[in-house]
Amino acid sequence: MNGQKSVQEAFNETTYRIVGHGNRDVQVLKEAFEAVENSTASDIYGSGKVIEDFQSEMAKLLGKETAVFFPSGTMAQQIALRIWCDEKGLKRVAYHPLCHLEIHEQDGLKELHQIEPVLLADKNRLITLEDVLHMKEDIACLLLELPQREIGGQLPDYKELEAISAHCRAHGIKLHLDGARLLETLPYYGKTAAEICALFDSVYISLYKGIGGIAGAVLAGSEAFTNQSKIWKRRHGGDLISLYPYIISSDYYFRQRVDKMQQYYEGAKELAVWVNQCHAITTLPVQPVSNMFHMHFQMSKENIEPILSAVYEATGIGLSAAIRPTGDYTSYCEISMGDKYAEIPKEEVKGFLLLLDKLMRESSSEQRSK
Amino acid sequence: MNGQKSVQEAFNETTYRIVGHGNRDVQVLKEAFEAVENSTASDIYGSGKVIEDFQSEMAKLLGKETAVFFPSGTMAQQIALRIWCDEKGLKRVAYHPLCHLEIHEQDGLKELHQIEPVLLADKNRLITLEDVLHMKEDIACLLLELPQREIGGQLPDYKELEAISAHCRAHGIKLHLDGARLLETLPYYGKTAAEICALFDSVYISLYKGIGGIAGAVLAGSEAFTNQSKIWKRRHGGDLISLYPYIISSDYYFRQRVDKMQQYYEGAKELAVWVNQCHAITTLPVQPVSNMFHMHFQMSKENIEPILSAVYEATGIGLSAAIRPTGDYTSYCEISMGDKYAEIPKEEVKGFLLLLDKLMRESSSEQRSK
Repeated sequence: MNGQKSVQEAFNETTYRIVGHGNRDVQVLKEAFEAVENSTASDIYGSGKVIEDFQSEMAKLLGKETAVFFPSGTMAQQIALRIWCDEKGLKRVAYHPLCHLEIHEQDGLKELHQIEPVLLADKNRLITLEDVLHMKEDIACLLLELPQREIGGQLPDYKELEAISAHCRAHGIKLHLDGARLLETLPYYGKTAAEICALFDSVYISLYKGIGGIAGAVLAGSEAFTNQSKIWKRRHGGDLISLYPYIISSDYYFRQRVDKMQQYYEGAKELAVWVNQCHAITTLPVQPVSNMFHMHFQMSKENIEPILSAVYEATGIGLSAAIRPTGDYTSYCEISMGDKYAEIPKEEVKGFLLLLDKLMRESSSEQRSK
Repeated sequence: MNGQKSVQEAFNETTYRIVGHGNRDVQVLKEAFEAVENSTASDIYGSGKVIEDFQSEMAKLLGKETAVFFPSGTMAQQIALRIWCDEKGLKRVAYHPLCHLEIHEQDGLKELHQIEPVLLADKNRLITLEDVLHMKEDIACLLLELPQREIGGQLPDYKELEAISAHCRAHGIKLHLDGARLLETLPYYGKTAAEICALFDSVYISLYKGIGGIAGAVLAGSEAFTNQSKIWKRRHGGDLISLYPYIISSDYYFRQRVDKMQQYYEGAKELAVWVNQCHAITTLPVQPVSNMFHMHFQMSKENIEPILSAVYEATGIGLSAAIRPTGDYTSYCEISMGDKYAEIPKEEVKGFLLLLDKLMRESSSEQRSK
């Protein structure tokens, strides 16, 4: 075991990848545009066939009247919450403590929209019907994220989701879906996207997670809602003269991958079983409910990184380069399954995990004997 | 003269174009990426060689410490004004009544940032030093647009610009440049971009006007300023995981066209002379000071459109499809010169204008004899 390379360097040099669809490079764009006619006209400030056709297709997929293409989910979701707050004349919403808007957007919701969030549930678990029933504050909108990414991509039971939706409808609370990875949950729920979205008043999906586009998001809802969202899109500076580089690539990879969510889900379940057999590693959730899960190491980031580097170098298989500490002696990484997993012979995946298990055990005994 | 086609249809069918760089279609993207290595890595949320190199190049061009690539000028400029307002603790700025922020952004500056604009000068003329000296309100920032697009792309004398800049510096007012078409003004001023930008605290330029990229903008200033702008870019939802489709195409067309601004400017001057010889048509300004000017018709939009359609059909040359009314009997269109003008034999341009002149005269006599 040499481990002199950083985990990022070792990862970059691997031939196989357990996670994802491959490198985010220019090839992704070129492939998507290869069969597109040169004379295909750009969208112009939200109009034109290229954007309107895709928006119609997405509205149909999500079972909503209309859909709008956005450059980012950050923009789409702040706008959705703003519209619901304005409609109720109340600038308060509720979401999970690890909601994207709370931890990844530099407080855009507060700084640009003066919207106050109520943080529902403990950060280590999902929002439940009980949480919603016991909420003291009146809110304009509840945001639910399916799956809840920051806790390994967990999902509520479908019955619970229906009950939360019914409660919100009965109490004048709009329900917004952060469905960045919605399509990835469909095999577990055994539902169509439209069936799930019917429980929500507005829906956002991402086009560069399971779909693997370059960037972009879709916001869907009633026509009145999406018309307002277009005004806010202009205000945010997201109504670009041309969004077609993202739209055409989203459309291309959507067609390629929309039917592969079951495959990614099965891959995540299979891999999680093997990972849980490794020394001092567990997955969250134990059994994945989408294409993703978290791997938790009973070892510090500093100690696990050289082990992972060594395994990547020895096997030519990469897992993750982004290890994050959760405490002085614990750490984790996020695993999202995509096209790449199917390229690796199963025996090599097992070999990878056997070596990881071996090095984890050796390192643990070294630690104990110190 | 048949004139049955709409002006847009007739324009679309022309072989030659007096204005612009050509159709905004997928070919624009494909050409820019043709020579780019497939393995070129994407930028990731504002980091990576592809975005950092371009930002450095733009900072150097504009003579500023640092520059940030934005998906749109709308986003970049609201953010620039917000930073200057926050720094002074005063949410008031001044700009021209036909400033992009005032008329094209659905009031994003007011709705998202609660910034109050003071409208300086009459809308039909440029902001002068006098206007700035006589401003009653205290402001955090003055925005000047070079050239002032909505009045045909007019420019102040350079001495006046220097005097306004000196006044702002002496009175604690930040000066921001809306330089959407800054590069297009350099031949007239006989200055470098950096020389002009030295008069300003922050600068925005567009990458899809004279440069002819797909979309995108650059905001430049001190490192402290641009660092803050990155936080606001995240808040606005503009810190995309991948902006390379815009960056790589901007870079490609920048290299192609940065040295052609003189050619576009000469074309505008030449064409304006001929246009001003046409019956009932004048240009604003009479002598262009950049690659652009407005054509004003002493004729209603309804009457000029079939005339233009007929000229386009007869000559195969297109001028503009967007005619806007300025009153019951007057209208105008915007002319921006680019690569296309040089493709047309001069005699054909003259033939186009002779026919336009003839049809304008005939139509005027018909009107008089009614």
